[in-house]
Amino acid sequence: LTHTNSVPDRSNLIWRRLSLFVLASALCSCPCRAEDSAMENIVTEKKAEESHRQDSADLLVFILLLTLTILTIWLFKHRRFRFLHETGLAMIYGLLVGVVLRYAIHVPSDMNNITLSCNVNASPATLLVNVSGKFYEYTLKGEISGSEVNDIQDNEMLRKVTFDPEVFFNILLPPIIFHAGYSLKRRHFFRNLGSILAYAFVGTVVSCFIIGLLMYGCVMLMKQIGHLGGDFFFTDCLFFGSIVSATDPVTVLAIFNELQVDADLYALLFGESVLNDAVAVVLSSSIIAYQPEGDNTHTFEAMAMLKSFGIFLGVFSGSFALGVATGVVTFTKLRDFPLLETALFFLMSWSTFLLAEACGFTGVVAVLFCGMTQAHYTFNNLSPESQERTKQLFELLNFLAENFIFSYMGLTLFTFKNHVFNPIFIVGAFLAVFLGRAANIYPLSFLLNLGRKHKISPNFQHMMMFAGLRGAMTFALSIRDTATYARQMMFSTTLLVVFFTVWICGGGTTQMLSCQKIRVGVDTDQENFVSVFGLSTKQESAWFFRIWYNFDHNYLKPLLTHSGPPLTATFPACCGPLARCLTSPQAYENEEQLKDSDSDLILNDSDITLTYGDITVSTDATGAHTSGMPVGRVAVNSDEALDRELAFGDHELVIRGTRLVLPMDDSEPPLPLDSRRHRHKNETMS
Amino acid sequence: LTHTNSVPDRSNLIWRRLSLFVLASALCSCPCRAEDSAMENIVTEKKAEESHRQDSADLLVFILLLTLTILTIWLFKHRRFRFLHETGLAMIYGLLVGVVLRYAIHVPSDMNNITLSCNVNASPATLLVNVSGKFYEYTLKGEISGSEVNDIQDNEMLRKVTFDPEVFFNILLPPIIFHAGYSLKRRHFFRNLGSILAYAFVGTVVSCFIIGLLMYGCVMLMKQIGHLGGDFFFTDCLFFGSIVSATDPVTVLAIFNELQVDADLYALLFGESVLNDAVAVVLSSSIIAYQPEGDNTHTFEAMAMLKSFGIFLGVFSGSFALGVATGVVTFTKLRDFPLLETALFFLMSWSTFLLAEACGFTGVVAVLFCGMTQAHYTFNNLSPESQERTKQLFELLNFLAENFIFSYMGLTLFTFKNHVFNPIFIVGAFLAVFLGRAANIYPLSFLLNLGRKHKISPNFQHMMMFAGLRGAMTFALSIRDTATYARQMMFSTTLLVVFFTVWICGGGTTQMLSCQKIRVGVDTDQENFVSVFGLSTKQESAWFFRIWYNFDHNYLKPLLTHSGPPLTATFPACCGPLARCLTSPQAYENEEQLKDSDSDLILNDSDITLTYGDITVSTDATGAHTSGMPVGRVAVNSDEALDRELAFGDHELVIRGTRLVLPMDDSEPPLPLDSRRHRHKNETMS
Repeated sequence: LTHTNSVPDRSNLIWRRLSLFVLASALCSCPCRAEDSAMENIVTEKKAEESHRQDSADLLVFILLLTLTILTIWLFKHRRFRFLHETGLAMIYGLLVGVVLRYAIHVPSDMNNITLSCNVNASPATLLVNVSGKFYEYTLKGEISGSEVNDIQDNEMLRKVTFDPEVFFNILLPPIIFHAGYSLKRRHFFRNLGSILAYAFVGTVVSCFIIGLLMYGCVMLMKQIGHLGGDFFFTDCLFFGSIVSATDPVTVLAIFNELQVDADLYALLFGESVLNDAVAVVLSSSIIAYQPEGDNTHTFEAMAMLKSFGIFLGVFSGSFALGVATGVVTFTKLRDFPLLETALFFLMSWSTFLLAEACGFTGVVAVLFCGMTQAHYTFNNLSPESQERTKQLFELLNFLAENFIFSYMGLTLFTFKNHVFNPIFIVGAFLAVFLGRAANIYPLSFLLNLGRKHKISPNFQHMMMFAGLRGAMTFALSIRDTATYARQMMFSTTLLVVFFTVWICGGGTTQMLSCQKIRVGVDTDQENFVSVFGLSTKQESAWFFRIWYNFDHNYLKPLLTHSGPPLTATFPACCGPLARCLTSPQAYENEEQLKDSDSDLILNDSDITLTYGDITVSTDATGAHTSGMPVGRVAVNSDEALDRELAFGDHELVIRGTRLVLPMDDSEPPLPLDSRRHRHKNETMS
Repeated sequence: LTHTNSVPDRSNLIWRRLSLFVLASALCSCPCRAEDSAMENIVTEKKAEESHRQDSADLLVFILLLTLTILTIWLFKHRRFRFLHETGLAMIYGLLVGVVLRYAIHVPSDMNNITLSCNVNASPATLLVNVSGKFYEYTLKGEISGSEVNDIQDNEMLRKVTFDPEVFFNILLPPIIFHAGYSLKRRHFFRNLGSILAYAFVGTVVSCFIIGLLMYGCVMLMKQIGHLGGDFFFTDCLFFGSIVSATDPVTVLAIFNELQVDADLYALLFGESVLNDAVAVVLSSSIIAYQPEGDNTHTFEAMAMLKSFGIFLGVFSGSFALGVATGVVTFTKLRDFPLLETALFFLMSWSTFLLAEACGFTGVVAVLFCGMTQAHYTFNNLSPESQERTKQLFELLNFLAENFIFSYMGLTLFTFKNHVFNPIFIVGAFLAVFLGRAANIYPLSFLLNLGRKHKISPNFQHMMMFAGLRGAMTFALSIRDTATYARQMMFSTTLLVVFFTVWICGGGTTQMLSCQKIRVGVDTDQENFVSVFGLSTKQESAWFFRIWYNFDHNYLKPLLTHSGPPLTATFPACCGPLARCLTSPQAYENEEQLKDSDSDLILNDSDITLTYGDITVSTDATGAHTSGMPVGRVAVNSDEALDRELAFGDHELVIRGTRLVLPMDDSEPPLPLDSRRHRHKNETMS
């Protein structure tokens, strides 16, 4: 049994490229005047320039890969081909390029690059090397296994296209997660908050332990029949459980959007996927932190277990608090300058990530909650142009990062040099993932249905079971550390799980929807008309939710945004002066207009904008028409107000339907309803 | 005379931070099972985590600096305070933080980080170190001077806030330059193309040599009186001349926009500033490439000179061709999917940079011409939403990069450790910069006025002289290499030149404008009415410009965009079938509408959108109204058509003025002219 502590994946393209920039300039910049070294310098300069060019060319390959993906996506969308999502496509292209790089191209590497070995007694981060009187600074890149030392020369090409795993976690993942938080459909999300939290927290932990236990059984079996090539501890199994429990919101939901699937199912799946990413990342870091004292680091110990649990709670709540705090702090008043506003918004989101990392929390989790808070409060303070700009900016960043991750996933299947594909482990993992998902969805749905008025029907449950794809987060967590045998086996298996779920489950979503007889093409207008006439909206008004909702609506919103009722109306009479100075002047104007923004939804272009009239309407007719609707807002604290508010978009639609017969006001007349609806349809298609 | 080949500036925050990510994960990922090393590992892990946190905190400082800048900019704009531009402000904040970092904070650095020295005989790019049986990989970071070796320990803090100079050149500069190219005001730019090219090419070269010669005289003087602490060759003087000849378009033009200064002056200054950046960067690299054969590398040699000239021409034209080619290639047909379109556009721009670098050309120059080509052709093919999105995206990137560079400039005045401030050199440099600018503007203007119908008046010349600020490009070129004494002196002096010009010239622009009696607040409507009635537009219709213009309009535009006349109308009759298959179907429709896009201008928000009616109008009234104007387009090749076209926006405005009395069509009625103009005014203010 050999420990192949190899870190070829530590070498990476970007830093390598950039460090070569540095190298190149460092070499250019010491034009030693001594005549004997001048010639030598020119040679090294040439070499550095050469490798800079090579690196630019390598990066160009990635960009062309992305370009190709975009063009093919366009073709697919154009032809309404739904069996393969863009992420699946990106993976296929990545696979192809990986095959080419692995088998077709063989670049003879420059032997001069890597030659020296010197014996010292420690491995500091920075090393000073004395070369015949001159000092050179070196930085540590990572450990290399003995077997790799000779190998390094051959793999120059593969090493170059291998990114640092931390790039995924610290650069590519944050925009994806932030965008997910920023684009949560808020009305349906809050309606189903209880269920979503249950699935995300309880469900993910259950799934993690079920998978961990099953995999431990599998590993035991492998050890019995001698199929195991290295150590594999129970903590490793749990770690595997935690990383494959993170489901990906991207693929299925894109199809859901296109087909206009039931909004509650959408909210359940999206909310669960987004939140369980956060749970999984904190869970996995708590599992890593499990370190019992004493000699054997892999025995069970209650104290260490408790400590891990404490870390989970601490890191999660810390990241949560930080994200929410930064989201709330971004209270912009820069409405007149959209560029400044957008820049500020972007910088605040990024600083959330850095702040969380600096405090020792998890940046990704903080960014998620920051996005949600900003969508809930800050978004309402932004000028309409900034709302559009921030939405589009994060959409673009998300799109690029996502496609990059998925195509890189395909690439690593061939370029990663330390794959450990173990058939028994793979079969066991697929089974465990399936059972883990089942143990998450079905029992929880049963329990939740006991409390829900609007039950989660069996076909919804089957759909949620089927739609548990694994994606970017699972990949980023598993590639983060591939040093030990156990981790390498996990990484290889995880790749296969991701491929399978994205291609098979992602591709089969349309079939599954029709098979489960789930309504597609739901005309959300009609659904809303129904709810106005008294059917739904009360489905999940649990008491804690109502309390929070009222608190949010009456105190937080007026305090943090320009919308909602003025604080003077909601504060007790004794706090009048305080309330008056805290309320923004705009809130008084808004009181008349009922411009509450609970239906201001931040949606993807591909989302069903039709349902949520507020943004559209206020853009179209400058809000004047809404003044004819003095409902609600008197009984601020009552449940009725909440219901009315949740159904706000619905009222809106009714009014919009009847407004055409009203006498026109002198402002710009609205577009005919048909043409407007047509425009929305077009947007939905894109 | 000692050679202080120091490279403390090579160390950098980002790569250091990221390499520490790598380091951290590398250390986390080799949990050597041997019990004796477990403890050691945990300690190193802790250390790595600690420094990761520290790095996040450092980066956070930069982000907060930017945030502070944005908030202050907002305050200034809000209060209409014009004496200090945002870039000047960013520099001041940078200076303050630099002072604090230098004098107030002293972080005792971890002595364990940098300890080892081992004697080897070469300095390879990658070093393998054998530490008691384990191999570690190290990468070369740069050379360190003997005197710096002990110093390294103390400067940990300053080293951390010092970025790699190549970051500026390869990451921060490209978006700025691209944005400049993408937002050139095209109509006035093309009208003044000849003059702009003369200023940019002839002027920059003249300025470079004048400054170089003056500085050589200054250096000779210093050598005589013993004030020179190191070598300073004539090539160094020329290099200095080339880097300080690059003028910055940002600061003055922002003020020009706000005050609505004469559009021709604007076009001259902006065009010159943008293009001379490109000239300066290629010029400086050609000067570095000047390497005479033989022993003394600093004698004059005709062959080497010719070779440098050849490099200049080769690199410039290569970068130009590449940029234009990629710009033309981006021929999108993805109009229905703005997100895909924007992503594609962004990736193509980036790949231009990489492609140019991979081919050995200058990426920055390629990106500039790519931006200009995309603005001229590709922009017309984009969907309206993508036009908006790309504009906003690059505007944001430009804004962030620019403010970052300027605040970093302020920072380096205190954190850079190898400043060489030589009073004589500094005085000489200021004088040389002044005279170099004068030798560029006045003689050239005189010569150009001989050929121009619409003369460049003396007060315009004085204004151009005054507005020659130095900015981001000068800084990036000078910080790129600070290894020798000469380069360090240049860098320090350049910093002062930039500070002076940005604060004094930038801040005094308003005063200078009123002092030179240059019309501000030009109502571009009125100006256009005048030109319609026959006054201007012919001012610079040199024959080569007319030929190119006609070729572009009749063949390139129809071929590459959906606008312009169909090729069937412009090709000779014999090429009919070919023309038919090359013309896009939309071009035929457009023929009726006269939807030529020479007045489709890509402007900053702060630009004077009023002049260029096309975008606005086609958005407002869906183009239907323009069909009542069947002028031109029959005599396609005549000069009259060209003039009419250049004045297209003007016709447009006349028609817009009269359209209000026409019977309304059944589409959405246009806003009243007053309210529309009011809206524009608001945009212009922002």
